[in-house]
Amino acid sequence: MANIYRTPIGYVVEDDGAHHALDGDPFGDWRRGVAVDAPTVVLAPVVPSKIVCIGLNYKDHAAEQGKPLPAEPLIFLKPSSAIVNPGEAIELPEGVGRVDYESEVAVVIGRRATKVSEADALSHVLGLTCMNDVTARDLQKKDGRYTRAKGFDTFAPLGPCITTGLSADDLEITGRLNGEVRQQSSTRELIFPVATLIAYISRIMTLLPGDIVSTGTPAGIGPLHPGDEFVVRVQGIGELRNPIVAGR
Amino acid sequence: MANIYRTPIGYVVEDDGAHHALDGDPFGDWRRGVAVDAPTVVLAPVVPSKIVCIGLNYKDHAAEQGKPLPAEPLIFLKPSSAIVNPGEAIELPEGVGRVDYESEVAVVIGRRATKVSEADALSHVLGLTCMNDVTARDLQKKDGRYTRAKGFDTFAPLGPCITTGLSADDLEITGRLNGEVRQQSSTRELIFPVATLIAYISRIMTLLPGDIVSTGTPAGIGPLHPGDEFVVRVQGIGELRNPIVAGR
Repeated sequence: MANIYRTPIGYVVEDDGAHHALDGDPFGDWRRGVAVDAPTVVLAPVVPSKIVCIGLNYKDHAAEQGKPLPAEPLIFLKPSSAIVNPGEAIELPEGVGRVDYESEVAVVIGRRATKVSEADALSHVLGLTCMNDVTARDLQKKDGRYTRAKGFDTFAPLGPCITTGLSADDLEITGRLNGEVRQQSSTRELIFPVATLIAYISRIMTLLPGDIVSTGTPAGIGPLHPGDEFVVRVQGIGELRNPIVAGR
Repeated sequence: MANIYRTPIGYVVEDDGAHHALDGDPFGDWRRGVAVDAPTVVLAPVVPSKIVCIGLNYKDHAAEQGKPLPAEPLIFLKPSSAIVNPGEAIELPEGVGRVDYESEVAVVIGRRATKVSEADALSHVLGLTCMNDVTARDLQKKDGRYTRAKGFDTFAPLGPCITTGLSADDLEITGRLNGEVRQQSSTRELIFPVATLIAYISRIMTLLPGDIVSTGTPAGIGPLHPGDEFVVRVQGIGELRNPIVAGR
């Protein structure tokens, strides 16, 4: 298990609290380079060619939304232009009504995946990170479709690192609004687990190295307001912390 | 006016029938280099960070679908993994039912656009190309959402070139199935013209150089079958021709 951070001057790998420059390509061949300090500025760990999100993938969230459990994964795309780095502000657009946080465990694809089996799916994963699938809830209800409601700039906080070698079978996920726990669940509550999602998506669209599959959010969603801070924490990965500001 | 082609060995620019290597960056500074032959193999002209498509943007297509004219643009995303080059096969996935062609005029963004005005929008455009917004019609109806129905590999033929300096106010667009005209209209029939689309989208998500905004399809949509050939032709740009095969 290792944490891979992207920083303004390159990738850094952390094992057992020690940090080293990552020499090479985190999606290909790499090795530990010189010892470095822990990074003080961390970027979203990848710039993906696409972000595939899953709707209604926790049993408790489907119940909270008053929706039946889906028979197959409900997929949608977020544009990569929505990504913001850990610590950067989520901007609430003017005039769109309620905007919600959604704490998620996100999968980072490591190896091209086209029509892969569930048995083989996890071999295409580089690691896991945290995502906040920020959603303009009123627009989502009005539009029916998700593209606009989920696609605003800053609506995809991602990070802080890619954690490799971690099973997504039973990870605690927590969402805290201004320090108060609002979402708390485990990936064992996923309706469709990671291997099923990757196999399903790869039968539709090829997943490329660096692509993100965000696995859905548990119950407890709620609105964000300017001045708030929201933290997604996933066991074994770390915390993704973002302040909330009014959009310009 | 010029046509910019992407080829396996770099960009080629065509003016008045003469071809030159493009020295530099088509999205930045470039000049005409050595004279070259007309390219025999042409790639999709860009690999965009996102493809933003518009639903129901021709009056006749909205009528054909039995839908009221939308009050604002209906946007959705196609993944860049769906792109295929001119001449490459559109693969019909197994077991998804009817798959349709949709001839479209696509805008190639040249300069980053965030919250731009309609008056300024066209200054962010590099040029125009042709797209086929291939759609699994039965899945689109079943899902309500468009991500799966529009997102399969090979569902975004794009090209043959980026034509600069061409107004999209009144361009004839034609779609031919096996040589027979099935779609014929003009961009003057667009409900939301290009400047309106770019201004609208840029208030939601930043458009980056190389991003595609596909402007919607006119009436006359219909199904594709293995062995067919479909050609999108846009006046002043050229033809985007793709054979259809059964998916594996």
